[in-house]
Amino acid sequence: MSPVVIAIDLGATKTLVGVGRTSGDLLARVQFPTPIQGSPELAVNEMVLKIRQLLAENNIADDQVNGVAVGAPGPISYPQGIIYDSPNLGWQKFALRQELEQRLGWPVVVEHDVAMAALGEFHFGQMKRYPNLLYVTLSTGVGAGIIINGELYRGSIGGAGEIGHMVIDPHGRLCNCGRRGCTEAIISGTALAIQARELVEQGRATYLQSLAKDGVITAKEIAIAAREGDSDACRLLAQFRENLQLILANLVHIFNPDIIVLGGGVVQGMRDLFFEGIEEEVRAQVFPMHRPGVKIEVTRLGGDIVLYGCLAAGGIWGFE
Amino acid sequence: MSPVVIAIDLGATKTLVGVGRTSGDLLARVQFPTPIQGSPELAVNEMVLKIRQLLAENNIADDQVNGVAVGAPGPISYPQGIIYDSPNLGWQKFALRQELEQRLGWPVVVEHDVAMAALGEFHFGQMKRYPNLLYVTLSTGVGAGIIINGELYRGSIGGAGEIGHMVIDPHGRLCNCGRRGCTEAIISGTALAIQARELVEQGRATYLQSLAKDGVITAKEIAIAAREGDSDACRLLAQFRENLQLILANLVHIFNPDIIVLGGGVVQGMRDLFFEGIEEEVRAQVFPMHRPGVKIEVTRLGGDIVLYGCLAAGGIWGFE
Repeated sequence: MSPVVIAIDLGATKTLVGVGRTSGDLLARVQFPTPIQGSPELAVNEMVLKIRQLLAENNIADDQVNGVAVGAPGPISYPQGIIYDSPNLGWQKFALRQELEQRLGWPVVVEHDVAMAALGEFHFGQMKRYPNLLYVTLSTGVGAGIIINGELYRGSIGGAGEIGHMVIDPHGRLCNCGRRGCTEAIISGTALAIQARELVEQGRATYLQSLAKDGVITAKEIAIAAREGDSDACRLLAQFRENLQLILANLVHIFNPDIIVLGGGVVQGMRDLFFEGIEEEVRAQVFPMHRPGVKIEVTRLGGDIVLYGCLAAGGIWGFE
Repeated sequence: MSPVVIAIDLGATKTLVGVGRTSGDLLARVQFPTPIQGSPELAVNEMVLKIRQLLAENNIADDQVNGVAVGAPGPISYPQGIIYDSPNLGWQKFALRQELEQRLGWPVVVEHDVAMAALGEFHFGQMKRYPNLLYVTLSTGVGAGIIINGELYRGSIGGAGEIGHMVIDPHGRLCNCGRRGCTEAIISGTALAIQARELVEQGRATYLQSLAKDGVITAKEIAIAAREGDSDACRLLAQFRENLQLILANLVHIFNPDIIVLGGGVVQGMRDLFFEGIEEEVRAQVFPMHRPGVKIEVTRLGGDIVLYGCLAAGGIWGFE
């Protein structure tokens, strides 16, 4: 049987820990809130605890495990697995790979979560292996995992795919990173929530506000309101869709990929509200030569895509 | 000795034909205006004529030639070598590779000119081989040649690197392609000329106007005026520089390349006016993790970069 891998999807709000095989069999998984309030060491403690529980519950002995693969928010250096000043985790230069190797004793590989997701999509998401695949995640942040000629492209030091910081409007909204009009400041889940909050502050979007728990509006409430036909929510989503089309057309011109696969919380949660017809719209925006090749899909791996990527990574790095 | 290659840089305004070796020795070259007014077949006639002359002048017999490599304006399909609706050449779906093979009898490879330039830069421009290199040309148009893991990345059908059609301002200037705020509509030589003409039409930039031959202002006159300290020309260039920095910072986030090399007519002609300090400015705009790796240079291969790329391509495609 193929090697056993511990798969970790370390997210800004929640963490998934799974165990599976490099063949793509996810045997078990557990989810818990990421303890980001404290030190990164506390988050590691929690991960180690959950790994131990998961192995015990599934009768997997330590010597059956071949390695650990982690997808974490960027920016991350590769292969050192150092998480740099991650705005979403609030960690600064934390040597996650080293810390986990010391605590667990297995070999550890750490990749940018969206790169890991791209590996998952390439190996287990598509029936056909598209050698040039872009995986674009719309979630708290925005990023891309890049597969080129069937291999993950990380860039010089693991910093490729930060499309969340592609500026598409120099007069646009201020981004966490200090620039204006970054993709992430415009179409991320966080950006959508900010836009909704602004409407409420203007005394509009009263229906949206009525849906908010403790005054907090997220992409989820926007989606619910839009499904009910609320005009403010629908307008927000129409803008979102327009911006997403522009971004996808940019990516088609830059990468001319075989396929773009969308995923992440925003996509999972609002697919019914924006996805239909988007391929045609992007096709209309790009050069005629690119049009026949425009192929845009939503991942079938759902919220486990990073875990699947971790299983694929275990195979690639040859944990034995 | 290494194989002999005919190298062709087919440009929108001028064409270069050279002969050289795959080792990077450019033996001879000739330049002439591209006859784009007539049919593409007329341009091919002219190329064939110049090739014959060049071979005769340099005492190279037909059987010493191993193949022909052409860099041409995009979009181009690879490996078919079909030039699609090229806005700059005014040709539509012309099978350049097939036409040249039939006329000349040697194997022909056709690449996007900027991709060819990237090959030239990778093989003969840098002392060190940077496996992840972006070559960005600012000329009549704007484009990028992408080297990833030491190989040219063309995308699914040869359409990668069309960064001239990365929208960076949805409310910006109208582009030839029909969208607004494309890179090409903002910082190409053509865009600079349009911006200068607008100033003249507003009754400003009188010094610039006095430099114009037959009322035509190009990037060349803008550069001359800026060197003389003309405030309108300087303002145009300051804007150009700011936009270029934004675009380069986008590319650093998207590709995290080992190096970005700039070339093309605008860069060659105005290097003294905008290049100094640009690396530091881009560094300040990108994520902290990307900063140490930001490396931006101007090509040392000058106006012959595409010809050098053709020689490299001849080696890669194994003309024998």
